[in-house]
Amino acid sequence: GRIVKLDDVKPSRRALELAEKFSINGELAELILREADAIYGGVEKAVLTLKDHMLTVNAGIDNKNAPLGCVALWPENVRDTAKQLREELFRKTGKKVAVMIIDSGLIPLVRGTVGLALAVAGFKPIEDYRGLRDLYGKEVLITQHAVAEDLASAAHLFMGEASEETPIVLVKGAPLKFDDEVYGLEDLALPQRECVFMRTFKADC
Amino acid sequence: GRIVKLDDVKPSRRALELAEKFSINGELAELILREADAIYGGVEKAVLTLKDHMLTVNAGIDNKNAPLGCVALWPENVRDTAKQLREELFRKTGKKVAVMIIDSGLIPLVRGTVGLALAVAGFKPIEDYRGLRDLYGKEVLITQHAVAEDLASAAHLFMGEASEETPIVLVKGAPLKFDDEVYGLEDLALPQRECVFMRTFKADC
Repeated sequence: GRIVKLDDVKPSRRALELAEKFSINGELAELILREADAIYGGVEKAVLTLKDHMLTVNAGIDNKNAPLGCVALWPENVRDTAKQLREELFRKTGKKVAVMIIDSGLIPLVRGTVGLALAVAGFKPIEDYRGLRDLYGKEVLITQHAVAEDLASAAHLFMGEASEETPIVLVKGAPLKFDDEVYGLEDLALPQRECVFMRTFKADC
Repeated sequence: GRIVKLDDVKPSRRALELAEKFSINGELAELILREADAIYGGVEKAVLTLKDHMLTVNAGIDNKNAPLGCVALWPENVRDTAKQLREELFRKTGKKVAVMIIDSGLIPLVRGTVGLALAVAGFKPIEDYRGLRDLYGKEVLITQHAVAEDLASAAHLFMGEASEETPIVLVKGAPLKFDDEVYGLEDLALPQRECVFMRTFKADC
């Protein structure tokens, strides 16, 4: 990610209002405003944002594991980063290794963080079961399998959250369909109108 | 889970209203009303419910991989089921194997299903980082790691969703802290007042 020194950030008036509302500092609030595509609300210290089609806390900006006085932002273009990493690994090793970039994220009403996929290069991130048959021959109507999200969580299990110094996990033997494509959040995300959570909570308002 | 024959279910008036609203059949709607602790809304074919502290679609009732004309419900008490399975495995093999019961679930704005933990017996499902130090010596303020959720997703990766016939996954070498406790959704879930998603979307209403 990108490392930003908070002293270099000048909070706008809107940032100071956001900071006040959610008990965060003004510099972080300013960065959230710059990084987020939408701000929905939040709780103390955590602002719920939309960032590149994904629901994230604080627009993916992380105070943890950045030097003192600094925060870590997502790479400018996560999809491109995954693509470049895969190409570089191929140039240096001659091996076609699939690459995934993941972040810690939250699930509603689940205590704790899980791994979520931000970009995938080199395998099919979603397995579409629609039209296939289940164990009893019934047609599957709506299920898709978020293969990349499951794998991101598997990797996250070995990364930890604080001082483990395990930013990279090498996965072998995962049941993936390899390809030469690159997938960003625009491919991994569901449109808001198709999301049971977003549709429900918006419909209530 | 429990298998229920839909013909044996008599829909109430409320169930018929729910069925009409979300284009599901009345028998399924009746079972959702019986199983769910709260109904929040939904989209076509998918009702967003609270079930045992967890946000689930259709109260965890699955049309897939149940015999024709039947649906599969969660076990009556998932925590007890995990406990009993662990005890039985110990009696039969003399080995202390940890057991987790998982279901497919959804994450807001993520396309596809992931594995989510319903109950855990034999390891610590949540790693609390609060008060620990990160890579740069800064104190970690709010992070907990949903170890069980990450592991549930790892297992779900190998289960698939339709006719794979892989209801059980044996995991070796996972970085777990084993214990002799049993954890249910009341332990794995976050109270609504602490959940950034629930607080935000409710606050908007």
